[in-house]
Amino acid sequence: MEIGARLPWVDELQSPLLTDLYQLTMLRAYVANDMHGEAVFEFFARRLPGRRNFLMAAGLEQLLDVLETLRFSESELRWLQEQRHADKELLAYLSDFHFSGDVYAVPEGTIVFADEPLVRVVAPLPQAQLVESRLVNLINFQTVIASKAARSVLAAPERLLVDFGMRRAHGGEAALLAARATFLAGFGGTATVLAERLFGIPVYGTMAHSFVQAHASEEAAFEAFARSQADNVVLLIDTYDTVRGAHRVVEMIPRLRESGISVHAVRLDSGDLLALSNEVRAVLDANGADEVRIFASGGLNEYELERLIGAGAPIDGFGIGTDLDVSSDAPFLDCAYKLQEYDGQARRKRSAGKATWPGRKQIFRRYRSDGSFAGDTVGIETERNEGEPLMMPAMRHGRRLQTSESLPTIRDRAQESLAAVPAPLRSLNKSADYPVEISVAIRELAAELDRQTG
Amino acid sequence: MEIGARLPWVDELQSPLLTDLYQLTMLRAYVANDMHGEAVFEFFARRLPGRRNFLMAAGLEQLLDVLETLRFSESELRWLQEQRHADKELLAYLSDFHFSGDVYAVPEGTIVFADEPLVRVVAPLPQAQLVESRLVNLINFQTVIASKAARSVLAAPERLLVDFGMRRAHGGEAALLAARATFLAGFGGTATVLAERLFGIPVYGTMAHSFVQAHASEEAAFEAFARSQADNVVLLIDTYDTVRGAHRVVEMIPRLRESGISVHAVRLDSGDLLALSNEVRAVLDANGADEVRIFASGGLNEYELERLIGAGAPIDGFGIGTDLDVSSDAPFLDCAYKLQEYDGQARRKRSAGKATWPGRKQIFRRYRSDGSFAGDTVGIETERNEGEPLMMPAMRHGRRLQTSESLPTIRDRAQESLAAVPAPLRSLNKSADYPVEISVAIRELAAELDRQTG
Repeated sequence: MEIGARLPWVDELQSPLLTDLYQLTMLRAYVANDMHGEAVFEFFARRLPGRRNFLMAAGLEQLLDVLETLRFSESELRWLQEQRHADKELLAYLSDFHFSGDVYAVPEGTIVFADEPLVRVVAPLPQAQLVESRLVNLINFQTVIASKAARSVLAAPERLLVDFGMRRAHGGEAALLAARATFLAGFGGTATVLAERLFGIPVYGTMAHSFVQAHASEEAAFEAFARSQADNVVLLIDTYDTVRGAHRVVEMIPRLRESGISVHAVRLDSGDLLALSNEVRAVLDANGADEVRIFASGGLNEYELERLIGAGAPIDGFGIGTDLDVSSDAPFLDCAYKLQEYDGQARRKRSAGKATWPGRKQIFRRYRSDGSFAGDTVGIETERNEGEPLMMPAMRHGRRLQTSESLPTIRDRAQESLAAVPAPLRSLNKSADYPVEISVAIRELAAELDRQTG
Repeated sequence: MEIGARLPWVDELQSPLLTDLYQLTMLRAYVANDMHGEAVFEFFARRLPGRRNFLMAAGLEQLLDVLETLRFSESELRWLQEQRHADKELLAYLSDFHFSGDVYAVPEGTIVFADEPLVRVVAPLPQAQLVESRLVNLINFQTVIASKAARSVLAAPERLLVDFGMRRAHGGEAALLAARATFLAGFGGTATVLAERLFGIPVYGTMAHSFVQAHASEEAAFEAFARSQADNVVLLIDTYDTVRGAHRVVEMIPRLRESGISVHAVRLDSGDLLALSNEVRAVLDANGADEVRIFASGGLNEYELERLIGAGAPIDGFGIGTDLDVSSDAPFLDCAYKLQEYDGQARRKRSAGKATWPGRKQIFRRYRSDGSFAGDTVGIETERNEGEPLMMPAMRHGRRLQTSESLPTIRDRAQESLAAVPAPLRSLNKSADYPVEISVAIRELAAELDRQTG
């Protein structure tokens, strides 16, 4: 390939062909039988994974982008015809395709629970069906990551948390959207440069062990690094021996200061972080370097954060990578995008273990006097219910209702929503379930449908 | 956004800014200090995750694409300057950047083990360093997925295995590359349409429960679907009651046959797949529909496949989704891209728990008389060692040495390599470790380096 050429497999991630084949086989039948009636689909988690006590909704912004731009190019249409994935009628339909439906959603950064719809799509049936695969792909992933990141935010309040996960994230889009999801959940930044360019997320970086190894000595590496940076010098001190590394740093500081260079922090990336951070803090403080911060990384997750902070480790910031960006203890949601209504009739799936509640739903949230969540009711949209409704209109006739929300706005909402999570659910371990009631109206609707389709 | 507009966050995944900031801070120092000597980095897994007894190498093709095309655009350079991520010298260097190094790698589809290098990069230090983040991102992910998929191939020989995981994959690139990695590992195809267009992977699709629910009855849904498809009619029969669904299918078959339509298969997606597949098979056979295949999906993974096949479930094909595409039991490798040599000098990291073996390495594989692997030695490239060398030159001076390997070629190699995995390692559970020796020459080099940097 030529230098600067575009990568075909990346370029084509824009394509509406990034979908499951069954969307096309179903559309073929819908178009053949003129089934363009209004369909209502909802996306929700059936249950909370692993040790999760709540989820944090995320990914809506990218979904709306996809819905607004989706269309089939001439060459895609030709290809579908050649592969016999579309007959004439379907090709005619797809050549004109644009999403003209309505979307309702829980705003990003909101805490939600199992059985609660995060997104509702109301559109002609073939449209609402076609968008399923990418919708689930985008909302599931960012919600998984924001929910995982929120746990680190709970475990390490007032500390700088930085996403270090790009290399182990599942591909490029995962790395980029994980940076977004962790930031909106309360992280302070990311190491992924592109996330700063695209989303304005603060970006952090230090040096790798290879940098130290490429130099004749650790001192030479530190000196070369410090003198080449504009500011924000962070030195990685564990390549050979962490405490010896800390001594080297304090020896250098006066020399560097003469050149107007200050060392902002040292980074520990291996070993017993609790013991080493205490030893390093002592070395720094005993040598008048109490302004130098300690940053830690290396196999961290919310459990390690809780343990280190609980034990009083003098660590000012944490770089969290792999476990975060793949959400290793819960890498997916048991979630679904289900038909709730077609052509004015409520619908319900009854497959063993996968039955769903029918109807267009709303989440009604009640609060205690201290501002924390008291309980939710999932009711029919038009039902009168106590509590704040969480699902909001996001798109009408295929167009966004507002301009995109800024990430800081979403991040503020996330912090507010996280602050209102009741105490037992703030634990990193599984606590008692949060009360989510299914309203009487929904239960009656389900029973009626079961009688009809008996 | 306008219909048909490009999605900025997808478009920019082409960018060299999809990297960790520390690559840029290190490059700044390297360029300032004229450190352009030849560097040797190797990528390897430190240990095998979870219940893995081997890994299957994958992702090289996309890595070579990235290395061949990588360059910085004017607008990226301007942005780096504005954000103060690059000084004048670094900007001048990056404006000219292209990867001119050599790459050696284990060919995709080859079975490998811990401590064995999958990729070696030999290039001027700043080049070899800059490419680290995306290299690890691409090789780790596809290797994780191919290794997971190979387990299903072992568990279900002679069955059709189809990747159903797009919706729970971590973003779009993950979905697409998971389709590639599962196919090369021996899957028969994928549901992800774009994977057929880009990689020529066979694509499979049926219908969703929503299709059945959108119709007045299950019969009406089956009939409408069958009559609208060109061929390959697969009916999903578990929306209401699986066995009743099977009866409906056999009742329809004579009517459809009159119209020249045949039902290829039925799909079960919930419930007790062992019991239901037996019941459904009995219904089909008792009604002269023994040509109709049974396809199963819903929460499957290699363990379920082993259980179902061991119990004799009459299932002809499996759709495997979530657990596969996120490799839920081992969603990442404990892997690293480490400096082995700089400017003619071997290098070694000694961080606690993360020490590495130095030098330019080769894997030498020995075979038993039945063709199965007998043991590997990781030695110095130039060492004489018994066994077949596995690392091959893939790129020289920044250009591929051969044209891209076709996926069928890689898939054949994978099948051959998988067939040679010794019996105990073919278990889905952790078996004894496969013998991978570190050669005496490497151990001596490591000891010598330790004395020098002591």
